[in-house]
Amino acid sequence: MKSLADINGYFSQFIEGSNYNRTPENLYQPIDYMMHLGGKRIRPALLLFACEAYNGKIEDALPLAHAVEIFHNFTLVHDDIMDEAPLRRNHTTVHTKWDLNTGILSGDAMLILAYQSLNQAKEKHQPALLKMFNDVALLVCDGQQLDIDFESEKEVPLKDYIEMIRLKTAVLLAASLKIGAFVAEANVEEQRKIEQFGEDLGLAFQLRDDYLDVFGASEEIGKQAAGDILTNKKTALFLYASEVLKGEEKDQLMHYYASKDFEAADKIRAVVSLFKSCGADKYIVGLMKEYYDKAIEMLESLQMDDFYKTEFRKLSEKVISRIN
Amino acid sequence: MKSLADINGYFSQFIEGSNYNRTPENLYQPIDYMMHLGGKRIRPALLLFACEAYNGKIEDALPLAHAVEIFHNFTLVHDDIMDEAPLRRNHTTVHTKWDLNTGILSGDAMLILAYQSLNQAKEKHQPALLKMFNDVALLVCDGQQLDIDFESEKEVPLKDYIEMIRLKTAVLLAASLKIGAFVAEANVEEQRKIEQFGEDLGLAFQLRDDYLDVFGASEEIGKQAAGDILTNKKTALFLYASEVLKGEEKDQLMHYYASKDFEAADKIRAVVSLFKSCGADKYIVGLMKEYYDKAIEMLESLQMDDFYKTEFRKLSEKVISRIN
Repeated sequence: MKSLADINGYFSQFIEGSNYNRTPENLYQPIDYMMHLGGKRIRPALLLFACEAYNGKIEDALPLAHAVEIFHNFTLVHDDIMDEAPLRRNHTTVHTKWDLNTGILSGDAMLILAYQSLNQAKEKHQPALLKMFNDVALLVCDGQQLDIDFESEKEVPLKDYIEMIRLKTAVLLAASLKIGAFVAEANVEEQRKIEQFGEDLGLAFQLRDDYLDVFGASEEIGKQAAGDILTNKKTALFLYASEVLKGEEKDQLMHYYASKDFEAADKIRAVVSLFKSCGADKYIVGLMKEYYDKAIEMLESLQMDDFYKTEFRKLSEKVISRIN
Repeated sequence: MKSLADINGYFSQFIEGSNYNRTPENLYQPIDYMMHLGGKRIRPALLLFACEAYNGKIEDALPLAHAVEIFHNFTLVHDDIMDEAPLRRNHTTVHTKWDLNTGILSGDAMLILAYQSLNQAKEKHQPALLKMFNDVALLVCDGQQLDIDFESEKEVPLKDYIEMIRLKTAVLLAASLKIGAFVAEANVEEQRKIEQFGEDLGLAFQLRDDYLDVFGASEEIGKQAAGDILTNKKTALFLYASEVLKGEEKDQLMHYYASKDFEAADKIRAVVSLFKSCGADKYIVGLMKEYYDKAIEMLESLQMDDFYKTEFRKLSEKVISRIN
């Protein structure tokens, strides 16, 4: 039985050994660059691991794991254009290293390459896999659109934000697990349950990101502490605070989020104090734990060997590490 | 037996009756806009007609015809961004009417919707259809990349240009016919032959476009006469002329193609005269007729009722109408 870390290493080696270069090279070099930029490769690893947990063959799941990883990287290439992001994983983004048109077209080709990889699955599985893949791919687009929409909206309810992160990130994690179970021919109920586990876990991780950006140590998360505050990002913390703060405190929060020209330390100190005074930190940790608990409860009910449950539990526990 | 025009009308009605709106509306409204912008809908019509010609059921081919039409429109949305085109079919392009990010993301969703439509085909056909669709989709991206590459290249051999238009436009026409034949379960040899017919016909039509832009009447082609000359577009005429012209004439051609600041009528008169003096007009017409003849020869060898051959022949003959 291979551990999740083993599976992750196996997939990373597979990607390192994959060559995406072909002609025209201006189209495929950026794809090769992006696919070898690293990243945690968590989605494909979970897909392969779910397949193994349900006694499926890793080789049967590999084309799907690859499809999911290419798809995820496609979304990053296009999202980085939309967000005007210069860096990704500490390297220059595709549209910055090359240009806008290269970012668009190489991204398009990656989306097609993802379907090409899906096409390597067992033929009898392909119609159902195509449906799962299309459904989740569209939901991810929906999530990205909501994210864009929220930027220009004055009031975003926290529940709409949760729905956005569900679509933008949790559903792909969930679908990866479901696809792994499907390829292993686990029953439909198990597929549904492991998908739900993934969705709740994904939401918990995303809320954790929002929390740790402000309340975590900067080294570990690999970016400037409270970067979300400095860029006026509408995170779960901010949206909760802007829903519950009233009067002068609310005005103060909005004042700080109306500009990026404040002295960094002052702004962070003031906003953190507002977050704490309304209990946003506690509320978001509580919400995160709710999703975490739901995920764990679902995990315990899955019909797989304890070895796999333990591995999934160890991964899940990372959600609550370093909190409080 | 339905004529090609009937089939075309049937498909156009199908599209007119299709609603692409869903939430988030900022993502799907542009898709609905684009899909209802008109266009000749020639690829889906040919797909459906090929299916009928091989005694297949139109209903079986409809999801594929729809997939091809959505895919084609996806390429237009992204190409219009890359070309910075303000207009498409006399309407504002998606990225102009909305914005860059909308153009990118709505285009992405359209590509996924194309696969969603393919997923409506008979299950047993899906693995092979997915392969055909992926292969042609990547080739179209390759063609678009070559087109971009050529813009900044000093010397583009005419044969490389032909390869570019083959990839960018002819292969999708060819694949449409092949897919129609496949869905009708025509034998592999017939599929290959009708695909080749489509590819040669597509090339002939594309060369015709280049020729008529300069030597056709402006009303009929719906854009300014010799627009390709005024925008210094590297068409088949220009590339042939730049290969065969020498000395002073070549310098003159390059001089006119180095800027867009010439007086329009002067530039057109001078360049047309250069094209004629080196025989570019005759050469391109000859090349076009070679592809046309090859297409017709292949058409005659197809195993289908004469009614369908006649319809395909009538369409093909449009290539040589208005030439000379």
